Amino acid sequence: MTQQSTDAGDLMSLCRRRGFVWPSFELYGGVAGMFDYGPTGFSLRNNIVDIWRDIYKRGEGFVEIDSETVNPQEVFRASGHVDQFSDLMTYCSVCRSPFRADHLVKDIFENPDVLSPRELDVAFAANGIGCPECGGALGPVEEFNLMFRTTIGPGSSRVGYLRPETAQGIFVNYLNLYRYNRDKLPLGVIQTGRGYRNEIAPRQGMIRMREFNMMEVELFVDPDDKDWIRYPEVKDRTLTLVPNDTGEPVVMTLDEAVGKGIIANRVLAYFIHVTRELLVRLGVDPDRLRFRQHLEDEMAHYAADCWDAEALLSYGWTEITGIADRGCWDLSRHAEFSGTDLTHFKMYDTPRETEVERIKAKRRELGPRFKADAGRIASLIEAMTPADIVGGRLVLDPDGEALEVGDDLFEVVTVREKVSGERVVPHVIEPSYGLDRIFYTVLEHAYEYDAAKDYAVLRLKPEVAPVKVGVFPLMEKDGLDEVAREIHRSIHSHRVEAYYDGSGTIGRRYARMDEIGTPWCITVDYEALEGEHKGTVTIRDRDTSLQKRIPIGDCGRIVGELLEGKPFDAL
Amino acid sequence: MTQQSTDAGDLMSLCRRRGFVWPSFELYGGVAGMFDYGPTGFSLRNNIVDIWRDIYKRGEGFVEIDSETVNPQEVFRASGHVDQFSDLMTYCSVCRSPFRADHLVKDIFENPDVLSPRELDVAFAANGIGCPECGGALGPVEEFNLMFRTTIGPGSSRVGYLRPETAQGIFVNYLNLYRYNRDKLPLGVIQTGRGYRNEIAPRQGMIRMREFNMMEVELFVDPDDKDWIRYPEVKDRTLTLVPNDTGEPVVMTLDEAVGKGIIANRVLAYFIHVTRELLVRLGVDPDRLRFRQHLEDEMAHYAADCWDAEALLSYGWTEITGIADRGCWDLSRHAEFSGTDLTHFKMYDTPRETEVERIKAKRRELGPRFKADAGRIASLIEAMTPADIVGGRLVLDPDGEALEVGDDLFEVVTVREKVSGERVVPHVIEPSYGLDRIFYTVLEHAYEYDAAKDYAVLRLKPEVAPVKVGVFPLMEKDGLDEVAREIHRSIHSHRVEAYYDGSGTIGRRYARMDEIGTPWCITVDYEALEGEHKGTVTIRDRDTSLQKRIPIGDCGRIVGELLEGKPFDAL
Repeated sequence: MTQQSTDAGDLMSLCRRRGFVWPSFELYGGVAGMFDYGPTGFSLRNNIVDIWRDIYKRGEGFVEIDSETVNPQEVFRASGHVDQFSDLMTYCSVCRSPFRADHLVKDIFENPDVLSPRELDVAFAANGIGCPECGGALGPVEEFNLMFRTTIGPGSSRVGYLRPETAQGIFVNYLNLYRYNRDKLPLGVIQTGRGYRNEIAPRQGMIRMREFNMMEVELFVDPDDKDWIRYPEVKDRTLTLVPNDTGEPVVMTLDEAVGKGIIANRVLAYFIHVTRELLVRLGVDPDRLRFRQHLEDEMAHYAADCWDAEALLSYGWTEITGIADRGCWDLSRHAEFSGTDLTHFKMYDTPRETEVERIKAKRRELGPRFKADAGRIASLIEAMTPADIVGGRLVLDPDGEALEVGDDLFEVVTVREKVSGERVVPHVIEPSYGLDRIFYTVLEHAYEYDAAKDYAVLRLKPEVAPVKVGVFPLMEKDGLDEVAREIHRSIHSHRVEAYYDGSGTIGRRYARMDEIGTPWCITVDYEALEGEHKGTVTIRDRDTSLQKRIPIGDCGRIVGELLEGKPFDAL
Repeated sequence: MTQQSTDAGDLMSLCRRRGFVWPSFELYGGVAGMFDYGPTGFSLRNNIVDIWRDIYKRGEGFVEIDSETVNPQEVFRASGHVDQFSDLMTYCSVCRSPFRADHLVKDIFENPDVLSPRELDVAFAANGIGCPECGGALGPVEEFNLMFRTTIGPGSSRVGYLRPETAQGIFVNYLNLYRYNRDKLPLGVIQTGRGYRNEIAPRQGMIRMREFNMMEVELFVDPDDKDWIRYPEVKDRTLTLVPNDTGEPVVMTLDEAVGKGIIANRVLAYFIHVTRELLVRLGVDPDRLRFRQHLEDEMAHYAADCWDAEALLSYGWTEITGIADRGCWDLSRHAEFSGTDLTHFKMYDTPRETEVERIKAKRRELGPRFKADAGRIASLIEAMTPADIVGGRLVLDPDGEALEVGDDLFEVVTVREKVSGERVVPHVIEPSYGLDRIFYTVLEHAYEYDAAKDYAVLRLKPEVAPVKVGVFPLMEKDGLDEVAREIHRSIHSHRVEAYYDGSGTIGRRYARMDEIGTPWCITVDYEALEGEHKGTVTIRDRDTSLQKRIPIGDCGRIVGELLEGKPFDAL
């Protein structure tokens, strides 16, 4: 579903007018799929990041890093992006417009993104599909890698790419992070920053951006221990799940979903739940939020399980977060491509006795052959493992010179040994949040046209709202402005953003604040200066337009209480 | 000066060990000039950004935006970076190593970066300079543009660059920002984010990074009003200045510097002062901080004045911030290249009477010629301006068809008119902060080898320290750990980062905290559980190693007071 309702258009128009987002480079004709965040939008986005950070860092004890956006090619060979991260495209042979090939047949095939270039060529011909712009014939379908490519340093030999995800910056730092965590698992790491995807022809507003913002979480766990210490706290909470066997939404508890094998394990279930709590706290409507399991052919071959948090938008159900159990894939690939050991040494609670194969030197044969050196040679032989034997022979290195010995001098024996632990490749649980999409969802779910007021109100949660309180003098004179400025000064801080506005009618000023989702407005009227209400001002609630009078000196405390959740009615 | 003292090496080694910064992509052999921020480093960096943001947003009322890092070529044609942003380089003809050409003659010329490619070729030959790596002959000197280049979308036609500064993202959004500010000046805008510089052969640690972080401020002001409302508050504060006429450091007040014409104007002086306050608050040593004015041949031709905040590091005096009055350059260029009006309409306090030239229709000639249409034609003529006259003729468009009239039908007259204002191109005051360099300076100025302890302590300001308080049980048993965990839980929050550590000797745990600059540590010992000190724990001061006993229930409040500046002695 890609049709865009009027809502999206109205919302984007409000976003431009009120400084949430602006299409980038309009001065130079614009670039599709790029947006800049204006002052109100950036504040809202920052509030979202702060809440996410607080949940993972303070709540779960994860650590945060920041890695580079330009990466050398080696990283993305290992991650698979050089080979796999591409879309199929075609150009119109007449007007040269580029198109994503699968989009052109989306009304004909249910799952067009599994078609090969050849199948797409055939489908265009068979269905008489031409260029949507000019009707011209479409050229042959080809692969287009979606990474922005560049070169690092002078010359063109060192190829680099802009990262398509922030995750790889965590994986390539695994050893640093593991040491920082004193060689322990679980190890939770978060990163927020830019990702890049050189889309062929982006057309869905903030849903499909060429340069986007992510909040990624990589949790490294023991592959044999996919539990989470806080799982018991949440196991009876319910979620709307769309499992891939039925494709039908069903509401069930986490423990039911894990018990029935619908969600692969407890740690994955726990972070699906954390994701739900986070999204709802940010303002995503729980009735327009579901968790859809990837279809079998949609899931990466290495993934043990994968779920998308989907929000219902004017674009249809849209992925805003992915939560996957990626198994050992990421670290195994980087270990292989870098030739570096990226394992965890897992201590057993008690040493285990196991049968292992060892090489044993035949000392009786070595004596006559090596005389005084025999003991040393025996040690060298026994330092080797059965895996070192090639064609029945071992190559030793007694004095920096190779010495080959045959199996007349050693044997492989099975012995019982106590081992204290083993090396395992950690598995990765990855909740990956699309920050711009979440930002957009929060706005769309907060957007409500108010017929009585004849304008749209953003019913943002106070915690994410860019401005917490507007402060107005009824008129900018007679001392009203001084009182209002003093209130503004006393409230405005890093945590509680206040906005002073002295110009235009009060109705217009309320409307401006409603449009950016400011939950409360304080107005200093003439009653503040004399009469029975002297020393008080009005405070107005965005969602009900109700007003109450409060003492001037209590403004800061009262706004603080409202921000902590006190109902407006209880003032 | 590029020699690196042992300090820088020791500091970088501490940075790696304690999770401040890691050279990027070590798993794949590394890439020069790239660093990743580990958990402690990222927290420190974030604290720096938060303080900067607070000063500009809350303190000065500026707004913050976030714009794209990939920009189409048009932006950097206008900014001048496509033509100008380059270094001269040469390759060794034998080993193919690339070098910055000016660096190879820095011991011979005082100002080698003004030399032309030809002059550098000659200098190499005359001084027998070969490849520093292998001694081979150097190839011809050539220009290398330092922007990372890429292409946007499929095909190679739309060239893009990674931005070399965040500033352009503000300039190209000037119209959006100006409207957001309701068409008023001054208009202050800040942005933090990545900048990119594809260095030829970076070799100075965090001082010369290919991918770096900036905090930029662009203040748009009326060109005729270079004052600042808060200037009187600070005019008597002193600064260490190095003016370009003498090149000698001199301490003087802002007002002296402005009065003597050393700093070009008050608004520039004010933000030089803001910069000093910010840097000192972050922990830059005031005795190793100075403001150096650009030399005449160093200053951009359009700049009215330009100062570098320089810190004394083991690399020598190093620019960590630039503060410039850029005049009308930025907006004029973008107006010219985009063909868009980027002016401010400046209302006069009272309308001014001025002489202007207007076109007046000769109605007596028009009557007979155009009959009933004469009035309409007269209006059309008088809607034109003298600039529209080409070769004594005007082209009108009465019914969508061109109508040319000669000067027999109109005349140019000088009239006195009241005008309410004029259009001006705003000037730009730009304090541009190198975040990584400031981060590194804060570390180097905080780094102190403690001979008694035999390790280095980071004497970071509490406000920027990644961890505010370490919480330790003396032993992780007998209930000490439970008390310590409860204290940790009660203190640890988004604003007050606490770190629980239960393993290793207490000395080792103190050392770990000293090395990351944690100002205080709380230890739960057996006396907390019984005896005369029951219910109290020790708190230790990083810089003096002094300890005091405080009640368990007061830990949160006391850490809060210390963070607000209460001296440890006063506990």
